[in-house]
Amino acid sequence: MPRQVVFHETGDADVLKIEEQPLREPGEGEVRIEVAAIGLNRAEVMFRRGQYLEQPQFPSRLGYEASGVIDALGPGVEGFSVGDRVSTIPAFSMVQYGVYGESAIVPAHALAAYPENLSAEEGTSIWMQYMTAYGALVDYGQLKEGDAVLIPAASSSVGLAAIQITKAAKATAIATTRGAGKKQALLDAGADHVIVTDEENLAERVMAITDGHGVNLVFDPVAGPTLTALAQATARGGIIFVYGALAPAPTPYPLMEALGKGLKIQGYTLFEITSDPARMARAKQFVYDGLAAGDLKPIVACTFALDDIVEAHRYMESNQQIGKIVVLT
Amino acid sequence: MPRQVVFHETGDADVLKIEEQPLREPGEGEVRIEVAAIGLNRAEVMFRRGQYLEQPQFPSRLGYEASGVIDALGPGVEGFSVGDRVSTIPAFSMVQYGVYGESAIVPAHALAAYPENLSAEEGTSIWMQYMTAYGALVDYGQLKEGDAVLIPAASSSVGLAAIQITKAAKATAIATTRGAGKKQALLDAGADHVIVTDEENLAERVMAITDGHGVNLVFDPVAGPTLTALAQATARGGIIFVYGALAPAPTPYPLMEALGKGLKIQGYTLFEITSDPARMARAKQFVYDGLAAGDLKPIVACTFALDDIVEAHRYMESNQQIGKIVVLT
Repeated sequence: MPRQVVFHETGDADVLKIEEQPLREPGEGEVRIEVAAIGLNRAEVMFRRGQYLEQPQFPSRLGYEASGVIDALGPGVEGFSVGDRVSTIPAFSMVQYGVYGESAIVPAHALAAYPENLSAEEGTSIWMQYMTAYGALVDYGQLKEGDAVLIPAASSSVGLAAIQITKAAKATAIATTRGAGKKQALLDAGADHVIVTDEENLAERVMAITDGHGVNLVFDPVAGPTLTALAQATARGGIIFVYGALAPAPTPYPLMEALGKGLKIQGYTLFEITSDPARMARAKQFVYDGLAAGDLKPIVACTFALDDIVEAHRYMESNQQIGKIVVLT
Repeated sequence: MPRQVVFHETGDADVLKIEEQPLREPGEGEVRIEVAAIGLNRAEVMFRRGQYLEQPQFPSRLGYEASGVIDALGPGVEGFSVGDRVSTIPAFSMVQYGVYGESAIVPAHALAAYPENLSAEEGTSIWMQYMTAYGALVDYGQLKEGDAVLIPAASSSVGLAAIQITKAAKATAIATTRGAGKKQALLDAGADHVIVTDEENLAERVMAITDGHGVNLVFDPVAGPTLTALAQATARGGIIFVYGALAPAPTPYPLMEALGKGLKIQGYTLFEITSDPARMARAKQFVYDGLAAGDLKPIVACTFALDDIVEAHRYMESNQQIGKIVVLT
């Protein structure tokens, strides 16, 4: 029987348990995969804590991203075969589906092949990060050559994806990180500039870098009081995408900056892309093209064994990683 | 010598003084008008209080909107003649120009003829209100038939303009007002629905009116804590335009609603339109066409004499008016 990650209550990482469960058959429109690698996301930490956009129903599984090999097809599934090497796209609800474990069932529309030159670790590290950054910066933000993009919390997998997408567009990537420890790694990952927010004034540094214009786009997963500094750093008519709620403190709306500069502050999640078939198709093609061109290269921070899932979640919450945390089954 | 409204310090309405000043000649690119009527705006109250986007330099004049007859042209002005009947478009800084008084000088680009069938009172009641509402709802918001628009503080001149523009687009206009006293007047002014926020739950009423969808566009001059209720009332992917800062309390950013529904919250002022010649030309044509078609009809709340400018400002601050407050010279 496959070993699956389950939790029975919200809480700290140690609520995650590994349990043997009977192998289930995929239903109508579903596909089952034998999981090789699991890509961890901050969304799963929030879901485990009961702080996500949807609430778990217990006992609950969790997990948006896995790579593996198809071992069963449900009725009505076309375009896939048993034995295909695929990874999951987070185009489902974690209340219904979760991929942490040795076996996972997902809707067929949430599966895609990944390029042959990628490992299983890399294959589970592409869809969430690149589609999320693509949807905001390219699909909504119309990122273009010469733009400047501000990327807070840039050492996350999505942040690094945003750096790569910004550089591929010949725009300027300005990364932020709290402490100086990750500065060199972010420069190595392609950031044109890194602002260490514990030591530097964010808005002043951005204005110095951009000759006083400010950035055209901001891609922020944090919110909280820092949103005002991000608004101060944004150019007239710029867009601030808020795609997460990592800050524990409330978020004041930067009213005077918004009025004075006509700023747009846009709440954004990947579901806006995955729930729209045309947008989703464009996003997939963008990721395939970027991987093929070498503009997009997934960065795996480190790997854990499935037995160490609690440690893997704790590591994510420690904010030490630069890139994707992957769990191998 | 013309009698002009001047203030020497920020404060309550009684800081406004009427002083005789020598008749000035218009400079390069400027035009002087003999003022017939002055349209009052909330922006001038904020400027007088020192709470506007720019700060007065004393002694300061004030005022964005006046109608009158051209009595002098500065060097280099083309397209206008002495004797033309015009009104001013708020396309200048009040630190440099102010139109409260018997004579006003403004840049030529901030003048336009108004239709012959409009009185001087009506002629000074078109540009700020219609261009402001047009810029947000039509130019940015792409208002279309079948949309639902939420219009807080709807009895202001800009709010009434938004109702007329919404109805002209065959969209649904949902007005809000604090007390029940203005409800019938707002229905008479064309609102499809009026929500009395002191008595009714705003988001619940909007959801009932829109069959649970919420509104596509919000056009809000207030901000403050109510922004969260506006976000709750907004449909997935909707836009909230914030074009003022009337609320004395801070404005929390409605993070969870923004993330959950992909909401855009956009700071907006008319300067975004008037500082862009192509947008400004489209806006002027929209107003001319709407006035000619009868879709747009300026509503004058009441008139005051120039000697009663302090009373006129107090009346605006009392929030009793429905429509434009006009001062006659």
